[in-house]
Amino acid sequence: MNNQNSQPDPEQPNHQDSTADTQDFTLLNRYWDAANYLTVAQIYLQENALLQDPLKAEHIKPRLLGHWGTGPGLSLVYVHLNRLIRNTGAKVLFLAGPGHGGPAVIANLYLEGTYSEVYPRVDQNHDGLRELVRQFSTPGGIPSHVGPPTPGSIHEGGELGYSLAHATGAVLDNPELIVACVVGDGEAETGPLEGSWKAPAFINPARDGAVLPILHLNGHKISGPTVLGRQSDEQIEALLRAHGWDPVVVSGSDPELLHPQLAAALDDAHAKIVSIQQQAREHGVDGPAPWPAIILRTPKGLTGPAVVDGEKVEGTFRSHQVPLSGVRENPEHLAQLEAWMRSYAPETLFDATGRLLPELAALAPEGQLRMGANPAANGGANPVPLTLRPLENYALDVPAPGATKHETTKVLGEMLRDIYLDTQDDPRFRLFSPDETNSNRLGSVFEATDRCFMGTAHDGDDHLSPDGRVMEVLSEHLCQGWLEGYLLTGRHGFFATYEAFAMISASMTVQHAKWLQHARELEWRNPVPSLNILLTSTCWRNDHNGFSHQGPGLIDTVLSLASSVVRVYLPPDANTLLAVSDHVLRSEDYVNLVVVDKQNHPQYLNIDDARKHAAAGASIWHWAGNEAPAGDDGGKAAPDIILASAGDVPTEEILAASWLLQSWVPDLTVRVVNVVDLMVLAPGDAHPHGLSEKAFAELFTTDGEVIVAWHGYARAFHQLLHGRPHPGRFHVRGYSQQGTTTTPFDMVAVNGMSRYHLALNALDRVSGDFAGARELAEHCHGMLAKHESHIREHLEDLPEIRDWVWTPPQPPEGV
Amino acid sequence: MNNQNSQPDPEQPNHQDSTADTQDFTLLNRYWDAANYLTVAQIYLQENALLQDPLKAEHIKPRLLGHWGTGPGLSLVYVHLNRLIRNTGAKVLFLAGPGHGGPAVIANLYLEGTYSEVYPRVDQNHDGLRELVRQFSTPGGIPSHVGPPTPGSIHEGGELGYSLAHATGAVLDNPELIVACVVGDGEAETGPLEGSWKAPAFINPARDGAVLPILHLNGHKISGPTVLGRQSDEQIEALLRAHGWDPVVVSGSDPELLHPQLAAALDDAHAKIVSIQQQAREHGVDGPAPWPAIILRTPKGLTGPAVVDGEKVEGTFRSHQVPLSGVRENPEHLAQLEAWMRSYAPETLFDATGRLLPELAALAPEGQLRMGANPAANGGANPVPLTLRPLENYALDVPAPGATKHETTKVLGEMLRDIYLDTQDDPRFRLFSPDETNSNRLGSVFEATDRCFMGTAHDGDDHLSPDGRVMEVLSEHLCQGWLEGYLLTGRHGFFATYEAFAMISASMTVQHAKWLQHARELEWRNPVPSLNILLTSTCWRNDHNGFSHQGPGLIDTVLSLASSVVRVYLPPDANTLLAVSDHVLRSEDYVNLVVVDKQNHPQYLNIDDARKHAAAGASIWHWAGNEAPAGDDGGKAAPDIILASAGDVPTEEILAASWLLQSWVPDLTVRVVNVVDLMVLAPGDAHPHGLSEKAFAELFTTDGEVIVAWHGYARAFHQLLHGRPHPGRFHVRGYSQQGTTTTPFDMVAVNGMSRYHLALNALDRVSGDFAGARELAEHCHGMLAKHESHIREHLEDLPEIRDWVWTPPQPPEGV
Repeated sequence: MNNQNSQPDPEQPNHQDSTADTQDFTLLNRYWDAANYLTVAQIYLQENALLQDPLKAEHIKPRLLGHWGTGPGLSLVYVHLNRLIRNTGAKVLFLAGPGHGGPAVIANLYLEGTYSEVYPRVDQNHDGLRELVRQFSTPGGIPSHVGPPTPGSIHEGGELGYSLAHATGAVLDNPELIVACVVGDGEAETGPLEGSWKAPAFINPARDGAVLPILHLNGHKISGPTVLGRQSDEQIEALLRAHGWDPVVVSGSDPELLHPQLAAALDDAHAKIVSIQQQAREHGVDGPAPWPAIILRTPKGLTGPAVVDGEKVEGTFRSHQVPLSGVRENPEHLAQLEAWMRSYAPETLFDATGRLLPELAALAPEGQLRMGANPAANGGANPVPLTLRPLENYALDVPAPGATKHETTKVLGEMLRDIYLDTQDDPRFRLFSPDETNSNRLGSVFEATDRCFMGTAHDGDDHLSPDGRVMEVLSEHLCQGWLEGYLLTGRHGFFATYEAFAMISASMTVQHAKWLQHARELEWRNPVPSLNILLTSTCWRNDHNGFSHQGPGLIDTVLSLASSVVRVYLPPDANTLLAVSDHVLRSEDYVNLVVVDKQNHPQYLNIDDARKHAAAGASIWHWAGNEAPAGDDGGKAAPDIILASAGDVPTEEILAASWLLQSWVPDLTVRVVNVVDLMVLAPGDAHPHGLSEKAFAELFTTDGEVIVAWHGYARAFHQLLHGRPHPGRFHVRGYSQQGTTTTPFDMVAVNGMSRYHLALNALDRVSGDFAGARELAEHCHGMLAKHESHIREHLEDLPEIRDWVWTPPQPPEGV
Repeated sequence: MNNQNSQPDPEQPNHQDSTADTQDFTLLNRYWDAANYLTVAQIYLQENALLQDPLKAEHIKPRLLGHWGTGPGLSLVYVHLNRLIRNTGAKVLFLAGPGHGGPAVIANLYLEGTYSEVYPRVDQNHDGLRELVRQFSTPGGIPSHVGPPTPGSIHEGGELGYSLAHATGAVLDNPELIVACVVGDGEAETGPLEGSWKAPAFINPARDGAVLPILHLNGHKISGPTVLGRQSDEQIEALLRAHGWDPVVVSGSDPELLHPQLAAALDDAHAKIVSIQQQAREHGVDGPAPWPAIILRTPKGLTGPAVVDGEKVEGTFRSHQVPLSGVRENPEHLAQLEAWMRSYAPETLFDATGRLLPELAALAPEGQLRMGANPAANGGANPVPLTLRPLENYALDVPAPGATKHETTKVLGEMLRDIYLDTQDDPRFRLFSPDETNSNRLGSVFEATDRCFMGTAHDGDDHLSPDGRVMEVLSEHLCQGWLEGYLLTGRHGFFATYEAFAMISASMTVQHAKWLQHARELEWRNPVPSLNILLTSTCWRNDHNGFSHQGPGLIDTVLSLASSVVRVYLPPDANTLLAVSDHVLRSEDYVNLVVVDKQNHPQYLNIDDARKHAAAGASIWHWAGNEAPAGDDGGKAAPDIILASAGDVPTEEILAASWLLQSWVPDLTVRVVNVVDLMVLAPGDAHPHGLSEKAFAELFTTDGEVIVAWHGYARAFHQLLHGRPHPGRFHVRGYSQQGTTTTPFDMVAVNGMSRYHLALNALDRVSGDFAGARELAEHCHGMLAKHESHIREHLEDLPEIRDWVWTPPQPPEGV
């Protein structure tokens, strides 16, 4: 057995010249005992944390909650990683996939000292130990799984499936980092986790760090076996090998035999990582690297009660949660618990003051090498903001509003291209997408970088190389999971995806927002760059894909989350998209949804106006209405009708409706309001972006009728208005599931969003008689009928709709 | 090569004694030509469908949409499956994972005749061909992917990832069925698909049918390579082998070489399936079966243009969608398109009337053996409803409302147990759950059946066997995907899952609802049993799991879907849960959410009252209020305050609030309304369950103040009230993301849902002075403070909260 010391860190004084021999493991095993002891103590005790008194019922918590089964395995890995770090100086981040192993991870953080540094009330003494055990799963305390309050963590152990994706995202452009990612055999059954094994196709050892998966098979879930747990070592090795890993199995139930095996496996894995990276960094990459992986097979609840009430517990699903129940009421269980806890001999682990004995404390690494203190887990060591070039570099020339069309997202591609160029020396930006970069018109990024792929290149491949930093993989889970890992370690990114299919990772969006919300409450947590999600191929433009490809539901999902964290933008055109993108890329700790279609759309605002519009969140578009200019009459009268929109297709339709109304009914005063930051609609006490009452009234008056053309479900718009004056005057046309048809005009028609529907809605809400109103209504009904038959005959929109652009309204010919 | 004819179907007259020799393949290749020709024709043509005239620009559609690249591979598989079916009489269902291959699948359905039978306007002649090409991706036509309008389909080809899960669900308890499931190498990158490969651990050859995966590697997605597409045959074989499959590779670009290879592979696969099943059915099962699988590697867009404008197209990502663009405007492209289409020699495939030549038509199977006519794809051949026993068998004895507690979901387990017992002879019910059956208190099912697992059994396993029909796998995607496949083929089921983590498969719920909505519009589609989702471990009871485990978001997701399809129930107690379950298990074509917590909760209604309550959807609980009995005053006065609730925890809190109000403020008249069917709140024009104005007013009056304690996000409740009289009088307390705390009382407190908060809310809304109101307010504030300190000290609720049960209200001691 050779100890690998390939990357010594000269600042780390405590390298041992150890070998994986037995002397080491006596101490290490006692350290593991301490971790296991504290794990049990957290689950059961509210007093007498070190068992200095005989255990009594009143020491036991009134409610026993938590998970024991995964704990010993997690601690085993943790203490062996400590050993590896001390021997090698490796910078290791620990990801606990089995998140319910919270008490084990916290036990190790406490033992290495990081927990007390972050939470001084949980100090290294009796009082601190009492806090440690009492806080676990109790009111006002900490949850039973790893989460934002856990030092050294970037991974919430609640919703299973994303540990390996988060680990992969964390190592991208983090060349010195090793993420040791423990994957439980429960989590290993989830789709997202199974999909994550393909990481070797995307990790470049020349520039990225390394993920070291430790697939921990304890064989059982809450009440049944795991699929992998019942497969042979060979079968599991073959599975990981097929995904490109170089796995090794460590298996057993006798700690004396396990320790040297696991130590050797970790030493070997580290040596392989160093060798792969050295080779790649000195000689370049050559296909996907055979990254080491460890398959660790130990009994569930190892060192816990073997048998309880005559039933086997250790090594079975019965050790999943609380192996001994009713301890307060059942003296036998109480005695068994005491015997179990005393089996770790706490008096030989902690001194009389409650402090871990020095010879054990010396087994933990020091300073930032402790896994609970790895700066990567707290937004990165030195998070560097992006330097963004002036938007004028990308701005479309918009000589007249609405007169020209352009693919709205194309300019964003140019902006992202320059971000890639400007971060070449300090790579900290990546675009993630399920294979849609060109399709999303973001292809300009390929002037600066390639698609990342470690696999074989073929002739005819387009911008594909191991050095590329555009991450394309047909998995929303991987795109978002990688990005989350990248962001939580302090880097920046964009996730561009199909609007309807953004629901695939909606639960991840929810969990990430919860993480950010919780992390913001913790003073010691650094802010991290925002999760920016670009939703394109929207519900209104699915020319051929149809009903299954339409769904604005992610907006609704996001709206229910904490207002401190979520933002939704619907830029109507390219320059506004630039202004919004500039903002979201500078922002921190948000989930920003940016909803914009990739297709050709009319362009309205020059870059200056777009900046102002985006900053305001919503503005009156005076050029699109016909009110007298402000000041002319010393105080504007309210318009006869307000037309409001949010979203690109709805904006085009509302403008065309305004144009129809002004053209046919010239005496009608029309105001057009465009909303780009959805949250301005909410009252100020509901969202920090909410407009003041005054600002809201300046846009929408306090009682005027408003026809709204809105991108999403009408209810989403309505609910934001809750608390605004007379919300019933807002007549919202949005997407609905009324129809199952295929094509754009049909969808606009089915959902009542066409310019003709909107103009008719407006006429319905206007009080008083206006010359031309009846004729316009007839025209609208006629056009709807004519268009319906035209598209079925000619398979495309009527020319007067297809080719319509904004021009100064004038009476129609012949009227 | 031996042709396998192990399961001849005597009713099928047209078995051939063919061998996989070359004679067959000339004809078969022409049939494939016909399929490819019609695929191209659908993408490009609006007229001149058989190219009987020289191709002109006006024959081309104005907008070119659709996907060519995957088509030839899909058709290749289809025509070879036709051959297999004719040779063996196998009952094969075709699942097209690459859903954008719609035109290829439709071409094959048209050629075999099923398409015209379902859609007579698309007949087997010129007019029909014109319809066929014109309808594709055009206004009012059909989408570009497989979906509900596609005969023979149970799988929407929109959101990728679920083909193999749907295939697996379809074969469970369908012993004669073979699902040939084409998985594209794009879809193969998704997490849900990768997770689906573990099917052999759950398919029992003695009682289930067979899934035959055909992993079709054409190497490219829309603009990049696929991960699998660049791996070696050996690596991919090893991957499938590790998952338990027995794969074989068929690879090539020369049809003459491909045909015999693929025919042999399919013959062999069929023989293996038959042999595995025979062995299991005659001698019992012995571990997971090594099911055959085919890895088919052919160039993307095979037979299409090799080079366009100097760039390689066939075999590259450039053939993904429309390989020749701008055909109307570009004469070269027009000529190239014509040459491409004529390369299939349509005049040698169709006769002068536009009908497929008889020698080709004879290659398709006949009758229900045609894959487009497989009855399994249309709700099953003979869908049999469940026979449910009287609910009295399971009903809890509830002598007095609210006086006793019980684990609410336990009775449902007993009901499901009997469903298992009663379907033993005709198995058509399964429970699917991510390993939560016991935890969800549904464990009574194990009196009737086991957990299904084909892997090795160990001592200490609990109710685990290959014969079990409880499907536990730690993957929401698999549970729901399997269930969807099971339902769409006409069987019944329940998906029980953790409320917060139901968002993991929210996108599947959306897609399934869209499928049902679309299918209901198609007269030829049979109804299918509803998708029943039991959400338990709800947001209000996550004693130790905390913030990441709380989320009622699936309700919001479902509310935005079509009202014709979605239903949401929140039974307050066990007997109401029984009544609701009885209903949803009998229902068809719905997505039913049933939201109820598994923990101990007060029980209110006996089974008769529960039935009435569930049928009404919402009722006044007279025993919980203090209005004079109806009739006493000949026409009730409105109560001073209405307390309404929906959901178990909110109901307990609102009842306790009612109890406090009546006890402390005896002159106050209080009405308590409970809502179990959420949709009754919506106006009748918004949802079919919406109460009439009169019925709504009978519960809530037209202007009385209503304090609502509601399970989910307040906005979800508010939006349902849109259109009801004076919705502003409903003051809704629901779950919000305000706090990140851990424990039940904290959560109730943070979200303002505690009995004390609700009582205070009620006092705020009451007009007039009432004796005792001030004292109650002081009491409530005092209790909130006292409880807060108590739980932090004693780690559990105050006894007067923990032990509270409903009793007749009486003045508090000392008042």
